[in-house]
Amino acid sequence: MLNKSLVLWDNQTRQIRDAVTNVEKHFGELCQIFAAYVRKTARLRDKADLLVNEIHAYAATETPNLKLGLKSFADEFAKLQDYRQAEVERLEAKVVEPLKYYGTIVKLKREDLKMTLTAKNREAKQLTQLEKTRQRNPSDRHIIVSFAESELQRASMDATRTSRQLEETIDNFEKQKIKDIRNILSEFVTIEMLFHGKALEIYTTAFQNIQNIDENEDIEIFRSSLYPQDYPSRLDIVRANSKSPLQRTGSSKFSTEIVQVR
Amino acid sequence: MLNKSLVLWDNQTRQIRDAVTNVEKHFGELCQIFAAYVRKTARLRDKADLLVNEIHAYAATETPNLKLGLKSFADEFAKLQDYRQAEVERLEAKVVEPLKYYGTIVKLKREDLKMTLTAKNREAKQLTQLEKTRQRNPSDRHIIVSFAESELQRASMDATRTSRQLEETIDNFEKQKIKDIRNILSEFVTIEMLFHGKALEIYTTAFQNIQNIDENEDIEIFRSSLYPQDYPSRLDIVRANSKSPLQRTGSSKFSTEIVQVR
Repeated sequence: MLNKSLVLWDNQTRQIRDAVTNVEKHFGELCQIFAAYVRKTARLRDKADLLVNEIHAYAATETPNLKLGLKSFADEFAKLQDYRQAEVERLEAKVVEPLKYYGTIVKLKREDLKMTLTAKNREAKQLTQLEKTRQRNPSDRHIIVSFAESELQRASMDATRTSRQLEETIDNFEKQKIKDIRNILSEFVTIEMLFHGKALEIYTTAFQNIQNIDENEDIEIFRSSLYPQDYPSRLDIVRANSKSPLQRTGSSKFSTEIVQVR
Repeated sequence: MLNKSLVLWDNQTRQIRDAVTNVEKHFGELCQIFAAYVRKTARLRDKADLLVNEIHAYAATETPNLKLGLKSFADEFAKLQDYRQAEVERLEAKVVEPLKYYGTIVKLKREDLKMTLTAKNREAKQLTQLEKTRQRNPSDRHIIVSFAESELQRASMDATRTSRQLEETIDNFEKQKIKDIRNILSEFVTIEMLFHGKALEIYTTAFQNIQNIDENEDIEIFRSSLYPQDYPSRLDIVRANSKSPLQRTGSSKFSTEIVQVR
């Protein structure tokens, strides 16, 4: 029965060690993947920055209305990239770093556990020893019982103390782990939501900027840049030089059409 | 004066060609950068997918409450990646493809312009020829004027027609360009907003899933997995074997503590 108890104790030890190793493994994996997620977000921001620059460069070559619309859009989009930058920094500080730091926490916890488990093992051995001593001397039952009583009492009190310590260590580890993963994921969601909320706000303005672009006004401006009004039409030139009857025969409609040629 | 008009015409031609080249250049750049932006969004989705898998893998090793919380979170986060995938596909179809297709549009427009500009140039030469003929024969003014009248009338009508065509071609190109960039950017904003809106919705649920994780319940479960209740405590074993007065001397508090050791 004592053997069975020691087997159980071994199982518990293994189970606790496995639990710590498991957290170490999975928190480590999570840390790496979250870090990669943050890096990709930063890469997305880089591309968005390029987009801002290119839209500004294109806007500079365009007619006033389109130029204004593009510039306003680029400005809003640039603002969103500032928020994306904040998102990247926050994720780094509130998600990746705490997960990275967990490696250290796990190491410390493992030391704690090792110490407590060593103490527990020592006690388990003492109990086994006690059991053996008693079994070897069945005739001296009285002395043995007295000896066993004091020894066992001491061993039991030690066992109680270290057991309570172990229990506390494990409980704290488990509690802290659940609290930490809950906090880390909550931070992740909060940071992401903050960004998505800002994105909705900014895109609403950006959408209006784009919708406000009026092509008709720009077409007029483009036309007048191509055909300056103070320049004579070619028909006027021919007329001035030839002084022909054309001046009379040319219908007003025809003249209007020629004016359009300018 | 005719020379001055031809210089103006050359300027116009160059200006129109530059405008088309400018659009070709900048729409091309925009296409490339938007494509890169979409690719980075897809990479971000890849990392998020890894995160979903890892959270599921970790959840499988955890106590029921934490497991449920992590699984629910991962499920919501996976849902968001489906929307990110839709975002990627929509951006590809509604932003990158139309910009890519613009290369073809610009080529066709350039052909249109080339044809119209060739016709205009031919007419400009005819007008120059007409002018020269008249200047060379100032004595035969009457015959020349009659000749010039019919020639000029034909040339002018041609000029009117091709000019109107050129104007229409340019106008359409400018109008289409403004409409297209406005549509493309509007589509971009709409697709992004759709995603951000969904993200807010999904993260709201995910946040609740995480907050609902109750560590106390899990600690109890973890404890009972370490110390099964149907197993005797070590003190019980010693008691059973020794039949010592310990059974009487052991205080109830002490016994309780030993029970906790299990």
